[in-house]
Amino acid sequence: MTVLAEKAEVETSALSNAAPVDIQLAERLFDELKRRTGTNRGITRASYGLGEQIAHDMVRREARKLGLEVKTDPGCNLYMTMKGREEGPGIFIGSHLDSVPMGGNFDGAAGVLLGLSVISGYVRAGIRPPRDITVMAIRAEESTWFGASYIGSRAALGRLTGRELDQVKRSSDQISLGAAIDAAGGDTEFLRSGQSWLDPKNIAMFIEPHIEQGPVLIEKKLPIGIVTGIRGSFRYREARCIGTYAHSGATPREYRSDAVRAASALVVELDKAWDRLQAEGADLVVTFGQFSTDASEAAFSKIAGKLSFALDIRSQEPETLGKMQAVVTEAVARIEAEHRVRFELGRLTDSKAAKMDDAIVASLAGLAKEHGIEAQTMACGAGHDAAVFADAGVPTGMVFIRNANGSHNPDEQMEIADFTEAARLVSALCLDPPLKA
Amino acid sequence: MTVLAEKAEVETSALSNAAPVDIQLAERLFDELKRRTGTNRGITRASYGLGEQIAHDMVRREARKLGLEVKTDPGCNLYMTMKGREEGPGIFIGSHLDSVPMGGNFDGAAGVLLGLSVISGYVRAGIRPPRDITVMAIRAEESTWFGASYIGSRAALGRLTGRELDQVKRSSDQISLGAAIDAAGGDTEFLRSGQSWLDPKNIAMFIEPHIEQGPVLIEKKLPIGIVTGIRGSFRYREARCIGTYAHSGATPREYRSDAVRAASALVVELDKAWDRLQAEGADLVVTFGQFSTDASEAAFSKIAGKLSFALDIRSQEPETLGKMQAVVTEAVARIEAEHRVRFELGRLTDSKAAKMDDAIVASLAGLAKEHGIEAQTMACGAGHDAAVFADAGVPTGMVFIRNANGSHNPDEQMEIADFTEAARLVSALCLDPPLKA
Repeated sequence: MTVLAEKAEVETSALSNAAPVDIQLAERLFDELKRRTGTNRGITRASYGLGEQIAHDMVRREARKLGLEVKTDPGCNLYMTMKGREEGPGIFIGSHLDSVPMGGNFDGAAGVLLGLSVISGYVRAGIRPPRDITVMAIRAEESTWFGASYIGSRAALGRLTGRELDQVKRSSDQISLGAAIDAAGGDTEFLRSGQSWLDPKNIAMFIEPHIEQGPVLIEKKLPIGIVTGIRGSFRYREARCIGTYAHSGATPREYRSDAVRAASALVVELDKAWDRLQAEGADLVVTFGQFSTDASEAAFSKIAGKLSFALDIRSQEPETLGKMQAVVTEAVARIEAEHRVRFELGRLTDSKAAKMDDAIVASLAGLAKEHGIEAQTMACGAGHDAAVFADAGVPTGMVFIRNANGSHNPDEQMEIADFTEAARLVSALCLDPPLKA
Repeated sequence: MTVLAEKAEVETSALSNAAPVDIQLAERLFDELKRRTGTNRGITRASYGLGEQIAHDMVRREARKLGLEVKTDPGCNLYMTMKGREEGPGIFIGSHLDSVPMGGNFDGAAGVLLGLSVISGYVRAGIRPPRDITVMAIRAEESTWFGASYIGSRAALGRLTGRELDQVKRSSDQISLGAAIDAAGGDTEFLRSGQSWLDPKNIAMFIEPHIEQGPVLIEKKLPIGIVTGIRGSFRYREARCIGTYAHSGATPREYRSDAVRAASALVVELDKAWDRLQAEGADLVVTFGQFSTDASEAAFSKIAGKLSFALDIRSQEPETLGKMQAVVTEAVARIEAEHRVRFELGRLTDSKAAKMDDAIVASLAGLAKEHGIEAQTMACGAGHDAAVFADAGVPTGMVFIRNANGSHNPDEQMEIADFTEAARLVSALCLDPPLKA
C-alpha cells in the first residue's frame, strides 16, 4: 500500500460518515424524464420502446459526463461503472427504466437515478469507493408489455428462452420480444445460447432502491423501508364457482346451489386462515382482486349459477404458501359439499419467494441508525428484478422509498427528501459494504 | 226449494267426489298456445302485446263454445263465468296469460286453462256448481315488460295510478302503459278514476293455480303444493361496497379496504342469520343475485375498491323481514368498521307478504286427502296476482303444480298428469267451497 493510497483511505473513512449524494442530478433527470416520456395522462416508457430508450439514452449521457465506464449487454441493459479502490466483485445498484402505460415517473427510474446520485456524490466529494460501483439500468421489467416478468435481468443472467423470444408479443404492437430486442440493438443470438452475460460470482451485492408500492411507510410515517424478502406467490387467475341459477324467491335454502354464497364462504375461510397465520408470525397477503357474477346471466331475482374470481396469495415463506395451498384445497372441498357447488380453480401459476441477504439487511439497518435515517424492515409484496439476482445467488438487498397513492398510476408520489434519505443510505452502504470473505 | 233442485243437489253431491275435469281441452290449448306464441327460443307473450292478445282471443273462443258469460274490464282482463245454483259471491279461478320474453308455455297460462278444464268438466258431467265460477284471464303480470308488478289485477281492483299509466314504458318498444291498454281496447279514463271494477265483497274466493317456480315439489316427488302465503320482501337492487384499490402484494392486511372481503363477510353474516332464523321456524330466503367487482377497474393484482351487489330478502312473515332488516343494519355497520369500507345500500324497495286464507288452505288439504291427491303445504316465494286479491280482502288460495327447471325460461316442464291432479283438486274445491257465513 502506497502512502497515497493510505491517505486516500483515511479521507474516505472520514468522509464515509457523510454518505455523499448528488440530489440535484436526480431532480434534473426526474424532470427531464417527466417532460420527455410524459403523455396526456401519466408517463409511458414501453419495454424496448421509445420511452424506455429515451430514459436509457439520458442516463448513458449522464454516466459519460461523470466519466463512468459504459457498457450494454445482449439484452440492451446498460451498465455504468465507477472504478473502486480494490479488485474483486463489484457492487451493483440497479432497477428498471420502463413503466406501465400511463404510469408514474418513479417506479423503476428512482432506483437508477439514485445510483447515479450516489456515484456523482462520490465524484464531487473526491471519494473512491472500496469496490467498483455499477449502476445497472435494466430493460423490460413491467410484465404488462410482453406478459413476461423480469425480461432484462433474466437476459443478463442467461435466463430467457428462445421460445419467449419468438412467441411473446408486445401488447401495444404485437412485435415479438426477439424482434424488439434486436431493434433496440441487442443480440438475440447470444440470448438464445442461454449463456449468462453476467457472472454472479463477480457481483459482491445487488441493491435495488425502489418506491414502495404499498402504504406501509406512508402509514408508519417513515421515509425508508429495508426489505427482508420478496414475496413468492401462487395464483388462480381464472377460477370459477359453478352453482345453479334458480328463482330467488321460490327456492328454499336446502335446494340452493348458490355461487355467491359458496364463493363468499371461501373468501371468509381464507380470511380466517390469513388472520390465524399472521397472528402466528407468518408473512402473508391474500387477495381476491376480481370477483364477479356473470354480467349477462345474473339477475336481481335469480340465485347466481356462476361466479368468476381471481385469487392471489403471496408470502415471503414457502412454508406459509404451502399451508395456504392446503387451506384452499380443504376449504374448496368442504364448501363444495356444503353448498352443492363446484369450484373450477383453473391453471395455477406461482413465483418463488426471494430472501434478501441477511448481512445486507443488517448493514442497512445499522447504517440507517448511524446516519439518523428513519427506517424499518419490511416484506416486499411485488416482484422486482432483485428477485432474479437473489435467485442467481447474488447477495441482494432492496431499499424502499416512501411513496403515496401506490404505483402503476400517474398519481404515485415520492418526496425528494425521502429519496435523499434512501440515497444517503445506499451511499453509506457502498462505502462500507458487508463483503463476504 | 223445488224437487228439481233437490234432485240436482243429490246428483251434484254424488258426482262431486269425482271432481270432473276436461284435460283434453287444456292439452289442446297448451299446444295451440305453443304453436301460436312460440318463437325461435321459448314462447313470448308480451303484456298488452301480440302474444298475450292471441292467448286472450283463444280462451274467449273456448269460453263461448262452453256457453259461458264473457266480459272484459277497463284493464282488458277477461272474465268467463259459469252460473252457479245459488246467488251470492262467486268463485274466481285466475292467473295471467302474458309471459316473459323467451319464457315457458306454462307460467300463468296453466292457471287459466285449468279453470276452463274445471268448467268444461262440469259442463260435460252436467253439473251446476253451487256458486258462479269465473275464470279470470289476467293481463300484464310479468314485470319484465313495464317494470311494474300485477298490472292487470291492480287495474281490476282500482289500484293503478295515473302516474303509472303515463310514465311506465314497455321495455320492448317504449310504448306507455296507458297507450298500450287503450290500444288493446281498455278504458284508461276509468282506470285513472281509481274506481275498482271488481267489488271484493262479491268474490267468495280467488284461487290461483300456478306452476311452482322453485324445486320443492320436484325434490319431494309430490305433484301438488298448497300455498300458505306469498312471501313479502325487502330489496336493495343497486347496493355497493366501497373500499380502496391497492396493490395486492404490497398492501398488508391492516391497511386494506377490500370491497371483496367486506362484501363477502356480509354474505356470510346474513347467511348465518338465515340459518338461525330458519332453525327457529321462520320462513326466509336471502339472495345476492348480482355480486361483482368493477369490470374495467378491478384487476388480478389489485385489491378491489368497489363491489356492486343486489340483495333480495323474502319471508311470509313481516316480523322475520323486520329481524333481517335489523341484521343487515347491524352487520353493515360492524363490517364497515372492521374492514374500513363504506356500504351504499341505495334505494330500498319492498313488497308486503300475503297470507292465504286458512279455511281455503284447510279445505284444499282435506280435499286432497279425500281424493287421493298427493300434496303438501308450502310457502310461495315469487309474487303473484293472488297477492293483490288477498291484499284487497278476498279469501285467497294458490295451488302449485310440480314443474322442473324453474320458470321464466323455455325449459320449464310441467307434466299433464300433475296438471290433472291440480285441476281435480280445484274442481273438488269449487263443488264444496269453504264459504264464509
